[in-house]
Amino acid sequence: MKVIYPGSFDPITKGHMDIIERISDKFDEVVVAVLVNSEKNNLFTLEERKQLIKQEIKDYGLKNVTIESFDGLLIEFAKKIGSKIIVRGLRAISDYEYELQIAHINSKLYEGLETIFLVSKAEYSYISSSVVKEVASYKGDISTFVSENVAEKIMDKLIGG
Amino acid sequence: MKVIYPGSFDPITKGHMDIIERISDKFDEVVVAVLVNSEKNNLFTLEERKQLIKQEIKDYGLKNVTIESFDGLLIEFAKKIGSKIIVRGLRAISDYEYELQIAHINSKLYEGLETIFLVSKAEYSYISSSVVKEVASYKGDISTFVSENVAEKIMDKLIGG
Amino acid sequence: MKVIYPGSFDPITKGHMDIIERISDKFDEVVVAVLVNSEKNNLFTLEERKQLIKQEIKDYGLKNVTIESFDGLLIEFAKKIGSKIIVRGLRAISDYEYELQIAHINSKLYEGLETIFLVSKAEYSYISSSVVKEVASYKGDISTFVSENVAEKIMDKLIGG
Amino acid sequence: MKVIYPGSFDPITKGHMDIIERISDKFDEVVVAVLVNSEKNNLFTLEERKQLIKQEIKDYGLKNVTIESFDGLLIEFAKKIGSKIIVRGLRAISDYEYELQIAHINSKLYEGLETIFLVSKAEYSYISSSVVKEVASYKGDISTFVSENVAEKIMDKLIGG
Amino acid sequence: MKVIYPGSFDPITKGHMDIIERISDKFDEVVVAVLVNSEKNNLFTLEERKQLIKQEIKDYGLKNVTIESFDGLLIEFAKKIGSKIIVRGLRAISDYEYELQIAHINSKLYEGLETIFLVSKAEYSYISSSVVKEVASYKGDISTFVSENVAEKIMDKLIGG
Amino acid sequence: MKVIYPGSFDPITKGHMDIIERISDKFDEVVVAVLVNSEKNNLFTLEERKQLIKQEIKDYGLKNVTIESFDGLLIEFAKKIGSKIIVRGLRAISDYEYELQIAHINSKLYEGLETIFLVSKAEYSYISSSVVKEVASYKGDISTFVSENVAEKIMDKLIGG
Repeated sequence: MKVIYPGSFDPITKGHMDIIERISDKFDEVVVAVLVNSEKNNLFTLEERKQLIKQEIKDYGLKNVTIESFDGLLIEFAKKIGSKIIVRGLRAISDYEYELQIAHINSKLYEGLETIFLVSKAEYSYISSSVVKEVASYKGDISTFVSENVAEKIMDKLIGG
Repeated sequence: MKVIYPGSFDPITKGHMDIIERISDKFDEVVVAVLVNSEKNNLFTLEERKQLIKQEIKDYGLKNVTIESFDGLLIEFAKKIGSKIIVRGLRAISDYEYELQIAHINSKLYEGLETIFLVSKAEYSYISSSVVKEVASYKGDISTFVSENVAEKIMDKLIGG
Repeated sequence: MKVIYPGSFDPITKGHMDIIERISDKFDEVVVAVLVNSEKNNLFTLEERKQLIKQEIKDYGLKNVTIESFDGLLIEFAKKIGSKIIVRGLRAISDYEYELQIAHINSKLYEGLETIFLVSKAEYSYISSSVVKEVASYKGDISTFVSENVAEKIMDKLIGG
Repeated sequence: MKVIYPGSFDPITKGHMDIIERISDKFDEVVVAVLVNSEKNNLFTLEERKQLIKQEIKDYGLKNVTIESFDGLLIEFAKKIGSKIIVRGLRAISDYEYELQIAHINSKLYEGLETIFLVSKAEYSYISSSVVKEVASYKGDISTFVSENVAEKIMDKLIGG
Repeated sequence: MKVIYPGSFDPITKGHMDIIERISDKFDEVVVAVLVNSEKNNLFTLEERKQLIKQEIKDYGLKNVTIESFDGLLIEFAKKIGSKIIVRGLRAISDYEYELQIAHINSKLYEGLETIFLVSKAEYSYISSSVVKEVASYKGDISTFVSENVAEKIMDKLIGG
Repeated sequence: MKVIYPGSFDPITKGHMDIIERISDKFDEVVVAVLVNSEKNNLFTLEERKQLIKQEIKDYGLKNVTIESFDGLLIEFAKKIGSKIIVRGLRAISDYEYELQIAHINSKLYEGLETIFLVSKAEYSYISSSVVKEVASYKGDISTFVSENVAEKIMDKLIGG
């Protein structure tokens, strides 16, 4: 079975990788779907975000994970690649509210589409890409939130930019 | 008794109409109060939003519902039209938090003002005007969220704009 | 319009009275519906609970409030007395979850039945009959939670029993 | 892939069946695991609960669903039948809190065990076996919550007992 | 400054010890106040619970922590030992609701009493004494939730009983 | 012991002052740390915000409270002034979620840093600086939310601007 793990991944955190590793262990094929999200003020370009994920996938040694990007409705992407399962990690109550709404909407828009939720590991439950970027912007230590490679690239961006 | 149902209604959804129909059945008079909200980036102008509501009210056959607009504090509008009851639909936890705060503030600002809450029907509990607009912007099917007329007008806007 | 305010009222608190006073000001007639609740381990008998409420209603000077008792489904009581509006006070999130479920169930069981929620005043949002009884059982001061009369009756019960 | 859908099912509701039908469509094999739960005061015996589920599975025409019972820790049952995926339906916030805790504990007790959550359909989000039994005990109409067969069996129990 | 850390501690978990260690580092004196709680069906007697805590305190090498027991209202105990600060660990939303209510009540009952909350470490946020006892009763592995000593004592109890 | 009470304080409300007064009574020294927050669209400048707090501190007669400002990571400020205790007031569920995340992050970034939470008094639990500013912008009465001095300064700003 092929499942989709969608997100902005700006950049990918250890929390994301925990979910990817766990679903890669359970499902035949995992498609990490990177939202193009052109309007949002991203730190990394789409290509950079995909490149960072690619490196992580390689470092974790995951064989059944591919990376693609999508624009517009997630359900259209799901139709295109022939998968009816979306995977999302749940961190907290506020997540839950929002995720529930999106899951309901998506199932209305695409009959038979299923969103399945995994619970984030406790130690990653307070991490998000935006928190990582905020801490980094003040030169805080982000090594417990992202991999060494991602940490370096964030620092390059913040100094370079 | 006259009650006020305030909102932005950009545009009116089936969830809003469910609430309006239910309070119209219980109270003598319902005033749908459209927030002018000039700063917010609305899809429809105030006049268009009122026109869309007017059409819905007519299609639902509701006789005791009128439509007005207000700017500034809701309690000032309440004083002006001589009503001390605000009606709000509750969809989810996050709604609840916010609505609770507003209800407390309003009761402090206007002695005797009461905010009463109705629970949204389960099938409408995940709909909001902003979700509808987002789905429509990607050409997703919005027919289960809004009436045929509203769906058409949204499409006109999105293509016209 | 006639509305129903149901509960166990074992015993009635200042929080309950705040809601009763507020709805008595807005609706034509308020029926306080005391749940017989024979299985639950009540401190006061049904008659005592009704008597305590009666005294409060009198002390608050409310003219349009009557007291009745019901057993079984609330919606059957609603049908019997010819009212389709239930009023409930909301104190906190956990309340909200439970109340939402009951409201949905009741509207399924009785077409057109409406449950409307009022937000408890901030100073009463942490009071409940069971907390009052627990504090009293340890001889704590309950005068900010219930009226003088109710406080006396609780003490009589706890010493008498 | 084989997944486990555990519960007390006293009795099975339309909400449960919605989840079973959806996972039966996505996974190779679904094992409905009925908790023996000897201490709890059940309305139906284990055998009756299994029989009711069996009838539902047949009426829904699901081919890849089997029914088993378990006592003790769910993870021991999971080990025994060789599955590492638990499926749970999420209805509300309070569910979520509790389910999260159980999922964390189970993943600590059995390395690699995964709990995946599906969101209950909006119309079933307020149904639970205990609410159904309470409504039935007062002779309320439960036909929108459970199947005709289950409704009959509940009535037999309540009259017979 | 002297602070009170109250609870049932039936038995003490690693989550409790995490809080005790952290407050012992910040405040002059910590009083672990064990609730006598005679009605509740405890696994360990009051003396056993105090003994288990004593051993933990010793193993953690904490010098400024003493253990006492109390019955009745916590605020009376607070008055008796001359402390106006209660410390509580927060694990989850449902905790929060309940803790908030108790904190409000206690501050009403004892002018100037303050309840301060610490957030449980992520890895302990799903542990509770009752979950530990339930897992142990099915012979599940509890070594990540409690100390070796506590685990042994639980097993003695469960086999002995 | 020295504790830090951080915030934007744009402007300081009665809710903030309630927390400051309470911690000033319990701890040796309280440092109100005003976030410089240059990007955010503040109503008052940093100097004005500090001046308003200074006046409040004086009016409340608090002797052990000082005011400082900080930019960047709060933990760096904590290191600089030699305090390892942050104090935050909790108002509602949504607060709690966010505050929990920040507390976890800060404890990861600065070993031994502790965030302690106090529960806002019920009557201040719905007040925030932004609500105060919104109400004031429509000329609503804000005298129950902020002190007379702060109310005046807000009006000066809104008329002057």
